[in-house]
Amino acid sequence: MGDNPMKAFVMNGIGETGFAEKEEPQAGPNDAVVKPTKGLVCTSDVHTLHGAIGERENLTLGHETVGVVEEVGENVEEFEPGDRVAVGAITPDWGSAAAQDGHPSQSKEPLGGWKFANVKDGTFAEYVHVNEADANMARIPEDVTDEEAVYITDMMSTGFMGAEHAEIPVGGTVAVFAQGPVGLMATKGAELQGAGRIIAVESVPKRQELAREYGADEIVNFEEGDPVEQIHDLTDGEGVDSAIEALGTSGTFEQCVKVTKAGGTVSNIGYHGEGEHVNIPREEWGVGMAEIDIATGLCPGGRLRLERLLRLIENGRVDPTHMTTHEFGFDEIDEAFRLMETKEDGIIKPLILFD
Amino acid sequence: MGDNPMKAFVMNGIGETGFAEKEEPQAGPNDAVVKPTKGLVCTSDVHTLHGAIGERENLTLGHETVGVVEEVGENVEEFEPGDRVAVGAITPDWGSAAAQDGHPSQSKEPLGGWKFANVKDGTFAEYVHVNEADANMARIPEDVTDEEAVYITDMMSTGFMGAEHAEIPVGGTVAVFAQGPVGLMATKGAELQGAGRIIAVESVPKRQELAREYGADEIVNFEEGDPVEQIHDLTDGEGVDSAIEALGTSGTFEQCVKVTKAGGTVSNIGYHGEGEHVNIPREEWGVGMAEIDIATGLCPGGRLRLERLLRLIENGRVDPTHMTTHEFGFDEIDEAFRLMETKEDGIIKPLILFD
Amino acid sequence: MGDNPMKAFVMNGIGETGFAEKEEPQAGPNDAVVKPTKGLVCTSDVHTLHGAIGERENLTLGHETVGVVEEVGENVEEFEPGDRVAVGAITPDWGSAAAQDGHPSQSKEPLGGWKFANVKDGTFAEYVHVNEADANMARIPEDVTDEEAVYITDMMSTGFMGAEHAEIPVGGTVAVFAQGPVGLMATKGAELQGAGRIIAVESVPKRQELAREYGADEIVNFEEGDPVEQIHDLTDGEGVDSAIEALGTSGTFEQCVKVTKAGGTVSNIGYHGEGEHVNIPREEWGVGMAEIDIATGLCPGGRLRLERLLRLIENGRVDPTHMTTHEFGFDEIDEAFRLMETKEDGIIKPLILFD
Amino acid sequence: MGDNPMKAFVMNGIGETGFAEKEEPQAGPNDAVVKPTKGLVCTSDVHTLHGAIGERENLTLGHETVGVVEEVGENVEEFEPGDRVAVGAITPDWGSAAAQDGHPSQSKEPLGGWKFANVKDGTFAEYVHVNEADANMARIPEDVTDEEAVYITDMMSTGFMGAEHAEIPVGGTVAVFAQGPVGLMATKGAELQGAGRIIAVESVPKRQELAREYGADEIVNFEEGDPVEQIHDLTDGEGVDSAIEALGTSGTFEQCVKVTKAGGTVSNIGYHGEGEHVNIPREEWGVGMAEIDIATGLCPGGRLRLERLLRLIENGRVDPTHMTTHEFGFDEIDEAFRLMETKEDGIIKPLILFD
Repeated sequence: MGDNPMKAFVMNGIGETGFAEKEEPQAGPNDAVVKPTKGLVCTSDVHTLHGAIGERENLTLGHETVGVVEEVGENVEEFEPGDRVAVGAITPDWGSAAAQDGHPSQSKEPLGGWKFANVKDGTFAEYVHVNEADANMARIPEDVTDEEAVYITDMMSTGFMGAEHAEIPVGGTVAVFAQGPVGLMATKGAELQGAGRIIAVESVPKRQELAREYGADEIVNFEEGDPVEQIHDLTDGEGVDSAIEALGTSGTFEQCVKVTKAGGTVSNIGYHGEGEHVNIPREEWGVGMAEIDIATGLCPGGRLRLERLLRLIENGRVDPTHMTTHEFGFDEIDEAFRLMETKEDGIIKPLILFD
Repeated sequence: MGDNPMKAFVMNGIGETGFAEKEEPQAGPNDAVVKPTKGLVCTSDVHTLHGAIGERENLTLGHETVGVVEEVGENVEEFEPGDRVAVGAITPDWGSAAAQDGHPSQSKEPLGGWKFANVKDGTFAEYVHVNEADANMARIPEDVTDEEAVYITDMMSTGFMGAEHAEIPVGGTVAVFAQGPVGLMATKGAELQGAGRIIAVESVPKRQELAREYGADEIVNFEEGDPVEQIHDLTDGEGVDSAIEALGTSGTFEQCVKVTKAGGTVSNIGYHGEGEHVNIPREEWGVGMAEIDIATGLCPGGRLRLERLLRLIENGRVDPTHMTTHEFGFDEIDEAFRLMETKEDGIIKPLILFD
Repeated sequence: MGDNPMKAFVMNGIGETGFAEKEEPQAGPNDAVVKPTKGLVCTSDVHTLHGAIGERENLTLGHETVGVVEEVGENVEEFEPGDRVAVGAITPDWGSAAAQDGHPSQSKEPLGGWKFANVKDGTFAEYVHVNEADANMARIPEDVTDEEAVYITDMMSTGFMGAEHAEIPVGGTVAVFAQGPVGLMATKGAELQGAGRIIAVESVPKRQELAREYGADEIVNFEEGDPVEQIHDLTDGEGVDSAIEALGTSGTFEQCVKVTKAGGTVSNIGYHGEGEHVNIPREEWGVGMAEIDIATGLCPGGRLRLERLLRLIENGRVDPTHMTTHEFGFDEIDEAFRLMETKEDGIIKPLILFD
Repeated sequence: MGDNPMKAFVMNGIGETGFAEKEEPQAGPNDAVVKPTKGLVCTSDVHTLHGAIGERENLTLGHETVGVVEEVGENVEEFEPGDRVAVGAITPDWGSAAAQDGHPSQSKEPLGGWKFANVKDGTFAEYVHVNEADANMARIPEDVTDEEAVYITDMMSTGFMGAEHAEIPVGGTVAVFAQGPVGLMATKGAELQGAGRIIAVESVPKRQELAREYGADEIVNFEEGDPVEQIHDLTDGEGVDSAIEALGTSGTFEQCVKVTKAGGTVSNIGYHGEGEHVNIPREEWGVGMAEIDIATGLCPGGRLRLERLLRLIENGRVDPTHMTTHEFGFDEIDEAFRLMETKEDGIIKPLILFD
């Protein structure tokens, strides 16, 4: 690899996209080059495009992909060309202090495991470079499809993490705020953590329906009244053991604190893109003494994580493909971005087909 | 209550049972008296009868029951006569040091939360005394049947605890040794903790079938070969993240250590009734340095726990009644004990009907 | 007890104090009555007096006390009249759902374990009623003085909790914001949790001096520059593993988030008395994804906790009496309150002598 | 480096040692070569020599070293030639599944992080090869001496881990069995974890004395009676919260279980070199239900760990050099091994001087 031109879908300044010709990536000694077969567009791609992480020029977009290994570096032991693999959206530096501390997604700097379409070219290209390939990819089992597998790279890993951080007791009550794809996977994650009752906050009918499919026992429609009041009504004024914020606004974050009982946990997975502060409501937080803890996280990466998520699909514990509402060829990816922006046509996740 | 005679099914020395006339219990200020409607016979009742906890004379047997509140003490705030309730098999002293330390089942002395048919009369009687009633019983919701609810008092609480202690990662691999009723609930518990692959070790076809129903992905029949080898074969020699011992022999405990990978967890829920030692195999334990931790526990009690388990039934996450293989009237309870001893007729759990 | 009048120091509406004659308390079956020998005035008493928890009429103030048991209820097993005891500032209902959930300080309602001088009469009186005496008091060993012991009831329990919640790694770095008595004990607590480097934020020389005595390796004086910058300078821009908020303002809370590295923990022990929100700075919080968790808590109570804290004093691990800057007779307690309010004369803790 | 001969102290079959001439090691892209300045002989070197891990031919011994960087690979970012560094005794593969799972010491296979003098040449040589240098070494601060620093590589990391795994509550009680260098550091570690009372089991006067210096409040001499009885006497029959096994025999392991209260933790750091089983005493283990958990571990490595341990020395929290009882030149290392074997002359740790 390395000397030939390839096609990539790039950001050219804030709000501007287009196809560019780039040089094919090369694999260093620990790395791999992967040829994507299927990808997904993420709402955070849209955020990036609109400047959430600042100006970017000629940066390839995308971070959710599966594909076929094209080339591996000399130290790579686990993979060889031709392997069908899932690539983590987050690809940490595993020897870094943060990874040694149990926070690989923060390797080298805050959010430092997030490299694709942030500090290096993303996955919407004919070829993709993967750092520390042995540690950051996983082989896809024969009985798992590409479409299924691409959901583990971010949606399942992030959504499930929201539930894992929420300290849900077996049989406990959980509220999940917003049922976009990450929120839906948080709902499913809550079920997989043994929640006894899951309340999903959502107003869009198709998302409500999927929420039920992924484990929600009740739906709270915030367009029909204050969700805090509705959840207190549903729980006899007691509140929930755990609340998961899957939208990324200070308003929903505040609601999460308000519906959580003393001694409970708020788990944040929303990307807070705006404002100077995220606000904790002082009184409902028990003036700082009600033992309502707040957990946060960035999508866990790593081969082990990916393999475990694949196992859940393989054994029928979860089918993420119900979130695929649209399909586009790589050539049509611009249209996928447009829909993700407008959220029109009931879009949840658009699947990108590379061949 | 208190001055009338009532009928109780008692142990009269090792191996001897019979009905006795006893005085009806009275409720102290924090206590309640409950009239049982449904009960379950537990294998540990049979152990007790055969002397596992020593000689007992005129001790009422039984610890799994649901019923109707007959009387409450003056300090009881949460219940009143007529309430339909589940009574925890374990009824801790909640102010004790052990409970304050997070180990209520060990209150006042090791296993001190286990009072029924151990240090006080059990539940196979017309009336049952419950200490600290507000803390040790739970109201049964309308849409949960007595038969469903009686399973939370021990089987679900203990079995699920086995999975909770097993530190199962989302998508992780788990082996559950023995699929009696507690093992079956450990299997279900592993599923509720997000296991990606559950291997159940069992030889009896009916139990294998229930194991699959409760979440097992694969069955290892120890009559068809060494289960340690079979599990290593199934996991490409890697072993499992977590192993749950649900039988109570040193042999299966050793197997649990042998199938667990370095860094994994062995969760013991078996009652080890025999021998001087439970053996850890030294080499497979990594000469004490392979980070294979060993967790143990006694059935968690408490109103909160019971309420959470009821919620799982209420929302359809688990149906424990498939374990009910037989039904007997209270008068026929001797026959239930006989079957639990011989395990004949494919018995798993016999339901006792009190009215 | 019960029929005689006694003297109590009460709050009579916001900002008004005085001595009142009250009836001596009586012990219910699980309770005790204690005759105080030494007490401490807490800044939160002053907050209460100024309306932080609302209007109160004829409410006895105070919650930090040691004394001698005068009377015990019939169910009390651990204590008898004449015992020298420490009484927890927080006296939970141990059978409550919150206590069963590991959050006794939140029993029955948020902050529900806080009863003294909140929902019942406090400890600045000739006699004090203690609920669930077996669970909420501890006998003071012979070689521990009353003055030492009274510090365990709140200052040591709360301050140490701040460090316990801070997830301090062995050898990790910690910043403690504010070195009042709770902050000083958080500093000592950080040392007792194995912190490798403790940075205390404080401007008052006497408090800086005590901070060093209790384990601070460095002092950051916020009057000499932005403490966030100073801490980043001290840590080569890396930030600390853990920050402890021991003041209770949104401003210092924000600073805590800003000095904590990605993957670190903010532990709040400050009582946030003002404002609608406590603010999380969005960017420094990694837009919600930097894995900076936020923990909160209310002083842990309970006999076990008290006994463990006494053991630390007994074996010379901590000497809290260096915080006693003033002494007053019970008759002079008004002056102690005045000084705690103005913080004049370098006051840290005023010891109240009851005999 | 790489083409010149160097001197190494090797094992030549079981029980045989001697100096050999070997080729100088070379640094791969992620590696470093270090020239030792100070080293320590470990009892496990003696175990290895006597065949504990099997036959080895021409294997350089030693795993505790500090030195000066001689050469670094092209990818190494944190170090350069001339840096004074400590090298972890355990040097994990940080991208491995086990490391991603939080168990770096088990990377690639059980105990797989233990490479020196096991699967590759150890540190008793003129030059030492370090894999993943950025992740497995730490720069030594100016005010920490080589002698101090060499103790972090194994003794402090392992001993402190024993205390970290022991789940010691603040103010809790701990028993540490055996006060060799690792046991002494477990004693110090217990103090650094907030133990309220530390009971050290040891018979050798010099070790008893050091145990007191490192935090033991009481000494139990097993030559003066059954240590289990003595510890029960000291704790009014209650037992300890945590017991640490620092010897590595099934007998002391059993004693650990026997002195631990229901709900407590046994933390094993002993290397169990003999026998088919390590025995858990069945009854004292509460027939598997007393919630006495058993934790194990292998010395944690990694730059972050090493830096944190250095910080404890730098800020005066611990001085490990009191364990240095002897000094030898590299040429005299044979004599150091002889003494470690016989334990004569009151030896605790012999320091090896390389220049």
